[in-house]
Amino acid sequence: MKTPKALLYGGDYNPDQWLAYPGVIDTDFKLFEQAHINTISLGIFSWASLEPEEGRYDFGWMDAIFARAQRQGMNVILATPSGGKPNWLALKYPEVRRVNPEGVRDPQKARHNHCLTSPVYRQKVRAINEQLARRYGNHPSLALWHISNEYGGYCYCDLCLGAFQDWLKAKYGTLDALNEAYWCRFWSHTYTAWDQIRFIDSGVGGLVLDWKRFMTAQCCDFIRNEVEPIRRLSPETPVTTNLMGTFPDYDYWQIAKELDVVCWDAYPVWHSEETAAHESNAALNAAFRHDLTRTLKRKPFLLMESTPSQINWAPVSPLLRPGMLRLAGLQAMAHGADSVCYFQLRKSRGSCEQFHGAVIDHVGNGETRVFKEVASLGASLEKLGNVVGSATPSKVAVIFDWEARWIFESAALPMNQEKHYVDTVLAHYKPFWEAGVSVDVINASADLAPYDLVIAPLLFMVSEETGARLSAFVQRGGTLVTTYGIAAVNETGLATLGGVPGPLRKTLGVWIEEFDALPEPSRRHVVAEAGKAHGLSGSYEARHILEIVHPEGAETLAVYGDDFYAGQPALTLNRFGKGRAYHIASRNDDRFTGDFLRFLTGELNLPCAVASGLPRNVSAQVRVQNGRNLLFLLNFNGEPVEVDLGGKKYTDAETQEAVAGKLSLAAYGSRVLAEA
Amino acid sequence: MKTPKALLYGGDYNPDQWLAYPGVIDTDFKLFEQAHINTISLGIFSWASLEPEEGRYDFGWMDAIFARAQRQGMNVILATPSGGKPNWLALKYPEVRRVNPEGVRDPQKARHNHCLTSPVYRQKVRAINEQLARRYGNHPSLALWHISNEYGGYCYCDLCLGAFQDWLKAKYGTLDALNEAYWCRFWSHTYTAWDQIRFIDSGVGGLVLDWKRFMTAQCCDFIRNEVEPIRRLSPETPVTTNLMGTFPDYDYWQIAKELDVVCWDAYPVWHSEETAAHESNAALNAAFRHDLTRTLKRKPFLLMESTPSQINWAPVSPLLRPGMLRLAGLQAMAHGADSVCYFQLRKSRGSCEQFHGAVIDHVGNGETRVFKEVASLGASLEKLGNVVGSATPSKVAVIFDWEARWIFESAALPMNQEKHYVDTVLAHYKPFWEAGVSVDVINASADLAPYDLVIAPLLFMVSEETGARLSAFVQRGGTLVTTYGIAAVNETGLATLGGVPGPLRKTLGVWIEEFDALPEPSRRHVVAEAGKAHGLSGSYEARHILEIVHPEGAETLAVYGDDFYAGQPALTLNRFGKGRAYHIASRNDDRFTGDFLRFLTGELNLPCAVASGLPRNVSAQVRVQNGRNLLFLLNFNGEPVEVDLGGKKYTDAETQEAVAGKLSLAAYGSRVLAEA
Amino acid sequence: MKTPKALLYGGDYNPDQWLAYPGVIDTDFKLFEQAHINTISLGIFSWASLEPEEGRYDFGWMDAIFARAQRQGMNVILATPSGGKPNWLALKYPEVRRVNPEGVRDPQKARHNHCLTSPVYRQKVRAINEQLARRYGNHPSLALWHISNEYGGYCYCDLCLGAFQDWLKAKYGTLDALNEAYWCRFWSHTYTAWDQIRFIDSGVGGLVLDWKRFMTAQCCDFIRNEVEPIRRLSPETPVTTNLMGTFPDYDYWQIAKELDVVCWDAYPVWHSEETAAHESNAALNAAFRHDLTRTLKRKPFLLMESTPSQINWAPVSPLLRPGMLRLAGLQAMAHGADSVCYFQLRKSRGSCEQFHGAVIDHVGNGETRVFKEVASLGASLEKLGNVVGSATPSKVAVIFDWEARWIFESAALPMNQEKHYVDTVLAHYKPFWEAGVSVDVINASADLAPYDLVIAPLLFMVSEETGARLSAFVQRGGTLVTTYGIAAVNETGLATLGGVPGPLRKTLGVWIEEFDALPEPSRRHVVAEAGKAHGLSGSYEARHILEIVHPEGAETLAVYGDDFYAGQPALTLNRFGKGRAYHIASRNDDRFTGDFLRFLTGELNLPCAVASGLPRNVSAQVRVQNGRNLLFLLNFNGEPVEVDLGGKKYTDAETQEAVAGKLSLAAYGSRVLAEA
Repeated sequence: MKTPKALLYGGDYNPDQWLAYPGVIDTDFKLFEQAHINTISLGIFSWASLEPEEGRYDFGWMDAIFARAQRQGMNVILATPSGGKPNWLALKYPEVRRVNPEGVRDPQKARHNHCLTSPVYRQKVRAINEQLARRYGNHPSLALWHISNEYGGYCYCDLCLGAFQDWLKAKYGTLDALNEAYWCRFWSHTYTAWDQIRFIDSGVGGLVLDWKRFMTAQCCDFIRNEVEPIRRLSPETPVTTNLMGTFPDYDYWQIAKELDVVCWDAYPVWHSEETAAHESNAALNAAFRHDLTRTLKRKPFLLMESTPSQINWAPVSPLLRPGMLRLAGLQAMAHGADSVCYFQLRKSRGSCEQFHGAVIDHVGNGETRVFKEVASLGASLEKLGNVVGSATPSKVAVIFDWEARWIFESAALPMNQEKHYVDTVLAHYKPFWEAGVSVDVINASADLAPYDLVIAPLLFMVSEETGARLSAFVQRGGTLVTTYGIAAVNETGLATLGGVPGPLRKTLGVWIEEFDALPEPSRRHVVAEAGKAHGLSGSYEARHILEIVHPEGAETLAVYGDDFYAGQPALTLNRFGKGRAYHIASRNDDRFTGDFLRFLTGELNLPCAVASGLPRNVSAQVRVQNGRNLLFLLNFNGEPVEVDLGGKKYTDAETQEAVAGKLSLAAYGSRVLAEA
Repeated sequence: MKTPKALLYGGDYNPDQWLAYPGVIDTDFKLFEQAHINTISLGIFSWASLEPEEGRYDFGWMDAIFARAQRQGMNVILATPSGGKPNWLALKYPEVRRVNPEGVRDPQKARHNHCLTSPVYRQKVRAINEQLARRYGNHPSLALWHISNEYGGYCYCDLCLGAFQDWLKAKYGTLDALNEAYWCRFWSHTYTAWDQIRFIDSGVGGLVLDWKRFMTAQCCDFIRNEVEPIRRLSPETPVTTNLMGTFPDYDYWQIAKELDVVCWDAYPVWHSEETAAHESNAALNAAFRHDLTRTLKRKPFLLMESTPSQINWAPVSPLLRPGMLRLAGLQAMAHGADSVCYFQLRKSRGSCEQFHGAVIDHVGNGETRVFKEVASLGASLEKLGNVVGSATPSKVAVIFDWEARWIFESAALPMNQEKHYVDTVLAHYKPFWEAGVSVDVINASADLAPYDLVIAPLLFMVSEETGARLSAFVQRGGTLVTTYGIAAVNETGLATLGGVPGPLRKTLGVWIEEFDALPEPSRRHVVAEAGKAHGLSGSYEARHILEIVHPEGAETLAVYGDDFYAGQPALTLNRFGKGRAYHIASRNDDRFTGDFLRFLTGELNLPCAVASGLPRNVSAQVRVQNGRNLLFLLNFNGEPVEVDLGGKKYTDAETQEAVAGKLSLAAYGSRVLAEA
Repeated sequence: MKTPKALLYGGDYNPDQWLAYPGVIDTDFKLFEQAHINTISLGIFSWASLEPEEGRYDFGWMDAIFARAQRQGMNVILATPSGGKPNWLALKYPEVRRVNPEGVRDPQKARHNHCLTSPVYRQKVRAINEQLARRYGNHPSLALWHISNEYGGYCYCDLCLGAFQDWLKAKYGTLDALNEAYWCRFWSHTYTAWDQIRFIDSGVGGLVLDWKRFMTAQCCDFIRNEVEPIRRLSPETPVTTNLMGTFPDYDYWQIAKELDVVCWDAYPVWHSEETAAHESNAALNAAFRHDLTRTLKRKPFLLMESTPSQINWAPVSPLLRPGMLRLAGLQAMAHGADSVCYFQLRKSRGSCEQFHGAVIDHVGNGETRVFKEVASLGASLEKLGNVVGSATPSKVAVIFDWEARWIFESAALPMNQEKHYVDTVLAHYKPFWEAGVSVDVINASADLAPYDLVIAPLLFMVSEETGARLSAFVQRGGTLVTTYGIAAVNETGLATLGGVPGPLRKTLGVWIEEFDALPEPSRRHVVAEAGKAHGLSGSYEARHILEIVHPEGAETLAVYGDDFYAGQPALTLNRFGKGRAYHIASRNDDRFTGDFLRFLTGELNLPCAVASGLPRNVSAQVRVQNGRNLLFLLNFNGEPVEVDLGGKKYTDAETQEAVAGKLSLAAYGSRVLAEA
């Protein structure tokens, strides 16, 4: 299979919207050249243009675009058009439209809302995909297949529910098994026939979990149907679909298995006001999702979409400050991206994205600030092309697990406010990001062999198998950190019996009896035990969830400082096999998490991109190509900063000038340095 | 009819969830004994277990539980299972599922959502109830029938609407009468056929009121259908259903008539942050609802459910602090409960209540803090058994009237924010609770003979009949206190003509012309008239609703201090017959209400549990058995307090030690003292 | 056509609600006389009373009311009853009930919710209107036809959608033209048959715009059907319908064309707390809407409804302070009203408006404060009758354009919070209101000839035609002020190509490249360029939207003071033809807008009602009758103020006393002065 050699620079391009506007497409291709753009993503929403009526195809305009791309030496990323169904199809075949949980079928509107089960839709998609694969599958400009667009959402039609019942039958075999797995005698909900399973009751954790697993599986199956003609007719070209970071609907670990390369659409709201929540830190969030996407296949990924300017679907999206466009692009590459692509190259004139940022604005020329920044980054990227394919090795893994998140978020708990699964994972990722330590973001069933340190924040669901794997990791010498919420339920959402954390009770050496729930803005305190600091000093604030933990072999490193549980363990360490297992019993402030994880970083001698530390909101990441380190230095502050490179010597990868000692970075400034 | 002699201690028990877990039920019964638990509530959601398919019954597991209970000398409270309908029934007979106001029939989910009218459902319920009554109705361990569970909600199906039309026809006789009662010419809504009454328009007060009255009546009728086989086959065993305090859907005064004994499910969120609203004061709220439930039948009630730990359906539910479990149980008894029961005895492993507090936790043993506190209270209760049946005499009644609440809450007024019916009643109950004065909580049609003082807060609806009864009460020498909002409408929601307060105009000696509406946080002031203090001193804050009142014989005791109505009456007193009628014209601060109601307490020489006064958040209540006072002292503070018992001498009812003078109560501490 | 000579004083009257209450109507008419009430609006919701069953009419009660009115010399405003459909009609013909956007047909409830397309409804309305016109159309007391009531809302039934498809076919001719106009290739939404246009997708700006235009057209068509029998049988009597200020659903400029005289229902929430938003200033809002309503036909209008006391559908509605009732009535007249009418004359006893203010309260006599204030104003108005027909000439126009508002409010922008179309227009109206400068409120397609100054706040949509008209206005010597957001889209919602502000680029002499979006509470600064103050001084705060503007011939008058766009233009002036065109690039504080518009007021020598200026919240307006000025002075403050009348001499129009120099106005005081 061929893979693109060049760093892909470009983005979504919808020339079919402009066929009635003479000269526009000519201008576009001139501007692409001017901006060093080498890639267009084509046909993402072109179904109605390609198949204006059932079975009648029109490829003329697309042929012309392919020809232009070829003349200009550009790569084409060709989409299958299933993300937007034509009106004629949606109205002729109602079954392709989704049904909502209340049983009402969608009208034809918007996009991304087709039934994943409908045989008609699958057949129509396969037919148009076959046409595309046959016509362009071996075109020399074709670089990548872009399957559909931003898959998401659920359908509750009879076809989907029927398929779900079949999926459950295959999984559980008998209704008795399913009834036990879901604890169906509760409220008299025992199923006595498979077709009684019709309503996804949000109160039944196991059912919610299985529904989301099934919908993930159904999406995978839908993708297999989409790619069938492509694999057959265009076997050399890799296949992707654009993911969306931590998007909750599907388990991306399953989706990734269907793809040759993964990519994602990154839309942080840069320059939005920052609050205490990690979710509001755009740079941190983007970094985390880049790492998550990369880890899905543990190899370089693509940045498929991003905005060169503002977005128009957030409450407020400030202008990108000068330098921010380059900074955001280089950040993606720093974390393993082999592309910088935008949505979109030319701004639509109408409909709901007409005021979303684009490379070429409605003014239609290259005179805008945005276009100039795009062109400037394009020139730089031509000098950074050799980053393609380089690795980002990590010794630390943070677990972000869709299934654990689903069951935690749906569980009715003594604490139903301030759940914050994503933010909690971010809180435990942040100290590494701040220190320039590369992190893989894995799920709970990942192979742990590559890592020295595994952090499992809020891992609410732990099966016997996962418990055994985490235990073995520690046994073999690994360091494991768990937090409050660990192992409350098993893989069907049944509560752990016989003492939480169930399969990890021996590994962690604790029994967790119960937890206090504190409403905002209540706080309690955590203090380190004398002589056992582990990086901790003074008193920390704890909030929301505070477990009552009984050591069963574990050592107490820190205790609560107040309330009726004063003196009881807040941080424990169990030495188990050749490794160590820590448990953090309460949701603590960032200072606690930072102090403790920095201590582990030092203790385990984890590699940092810049040894001497980094200013606040400055990120440093390393990519390794043939044993040579490429250092990305990224200043997310609106003011200049100075970074101490220590004793190391570098060459600027763009200018080739030598760099060492103290390096200045402008406001939103970014540099790429090759280690000497 | 037999009534339990012992104080019932125990709670909901669902062994049918654990049939696949050998040993669990054995463990449970051992732990019950260890905790002095003498009662289990059985079968509340067991329909699917008892009748796994239509007409096929399986009582084996229940027989075994009855046998165990009998061996261990325990009481069984046996439920009818109508609160949770099996899937097979709900899917085979759609009519048993409710229809929402938009006309959509519920899917099968959750619970408490069956149609109250459906003949099929009534027949199926009667059939299973007959089986239960026949099999267990004379079992020696059977103590009580628990009909269904937490009845609530409305159904808008054609069967219900048809029954409503019939109910209206019976009530009004002619459409002309109904049209006048609802003021139907407004907006051209005159009904010209009974079956036009199909939509419960929230703007038509009389219709809303009648709909809620009808739904209450339909629930009563449903209960009569449920109990028919029970009365026939198990005539010796009393019947109850678990109520829910001030639950708004039905008028509990009507429901109570169908029952032999009343009980309720008490779920205050203990330790939640307190605000200025009385609704957030958990102890006050629980006290009020205990008194309301007791007054429903003016005899001891049962606490049917409460949590021994956290709940899991509130936003945040902190752990019960040490002592709180005992305190909450004794509070119920102090107000007239003859039981302390929990939901539930063993925590479910799955579904939406798996993380709700329980006596036996998932760990499955007696080692938890919660179990130990339950067992400790169990031991105490064995020493307090003689409280059963004792009385709680009250000379004060506060009116909490479902019908007045319904019409007030649905009325469109110049003040639609900050209506706060429940909180307003609580505000007028609180001073008595603080002073240890026992209160009955009555409705507007209650017999007033037992009382010296009746408070009618926000009694928006006053029929001619109610007006006459309140007037007669004053005439005979009673003291009546009304507030802003009095008598705005009659019993069909029509505005009072000829001058508010209509039927009370002579009694109160005032005409209420209009009222000012103030948005938050606006305030005005109320000041006592010189020489007429009635306990008042200085200036008080008034908010939200301020009536313009013209005395017509009444004396002005306090006036407004500002705005264009400065100097006009804010508190009036009318001497009428042998009694006195006060009217409070504005929503005043707690200091006003406290000063004024404490003044009346002294003036009327109302009995206080502790003569010398009580510290803040300490409650004192008295139960009287054969002329002997049992004093409950309850400290709801997180710090210790001291209570001055004055000259009286007591014996601690648990330890038998003598107690007098100043008594220390620990944080969340509670004592039961028998008066010497 | 006859027009009422007298100033109409009175309001809605619903005697059909009181037919069962002997004596009430007698009392009412006595009280009308006592209060100098000369007008009743009759039959607004009387359909069920007039036609109790299909085709059977009952006019007896209405005949009697007409006869009473005639005896008492009163005017009758007779309504057609289509605003409230009878139950028999709604249930027999379901098609007359609306369908919501989700496809669900309304139950019969409330009012104002009939389908505008249904042939059955149109036929039934025409039939009852014919009866009314035939019976009362030439009655000597009939003053005005009041067509239906407060038209509003949309219906999505098949009849409406079919009519919409026809309307689109007539407008666009071909689907190709429509697809281009809506940019339908976006997301593959190309229509290939007219009947595919079934769902009003809020993301498609052009479709949303056309839907609202169509619904406006459908309302006009419905009105034409209503008035057909009236024009035929009662040709001498003018026709109106009660509008609602800036009500968003329909474009009132189109509705007004169907009417002989316009009127509106004014319900400011007087005395509500004021915030920084102009929308919360009741007097400013009422003034603006009076001016807007008057400008619809550029002649005197009627105040058809207002409350004599509180309203009952706001969150909170304080009592009208003494004087406020008179002040609100005179304010309407000051802005061009030839009537003061109330909703309603007698307060309903039941249903959802039973606690809405009325002239005669439930007490049923003339002893209330409200009645006395109504009577007092009635006496005054008899002395002010000669105001009828007098003009309110304006040299300033502020554009309030329904279409621009619709497309701006529905557009997805980088700034989706804090859009505030109405408030932005108010902000640019306010300085004139404060200065006593009379303003016309026009739409974007209005004739600009009468004006010296035109303000176009947030005029997001500018067609080529509108652009040309605004340009010609400047060319001829007019002064135009535009703001941020100008000309972003054309008349089908397509983005302006080739550089914003498109058709105004030459006129304004600027190119607007992009805009920054700032979340609350972020602020930037605007500072005047040295020597170019134009009334500006110091530094102003800008927020929310800040455009990056490049002068192309325009002069920069003020610049941004900070951020990366510091020094770039914030206010520009282009001298174009004989006129001047200003552009305000950012949303600035009131001080900026006030300073700048006051400067223009002076520069253009615009006439002020009181030359020497006015205290805060005091309004002065002039009406001109036969060349003689009538000055209305209105104090909206809760404290007395003094107004300096300068050298002019006046006579009080009520008392005939001479007035000059400094004049005191009481709290909420108001005077009408005839210029000598």
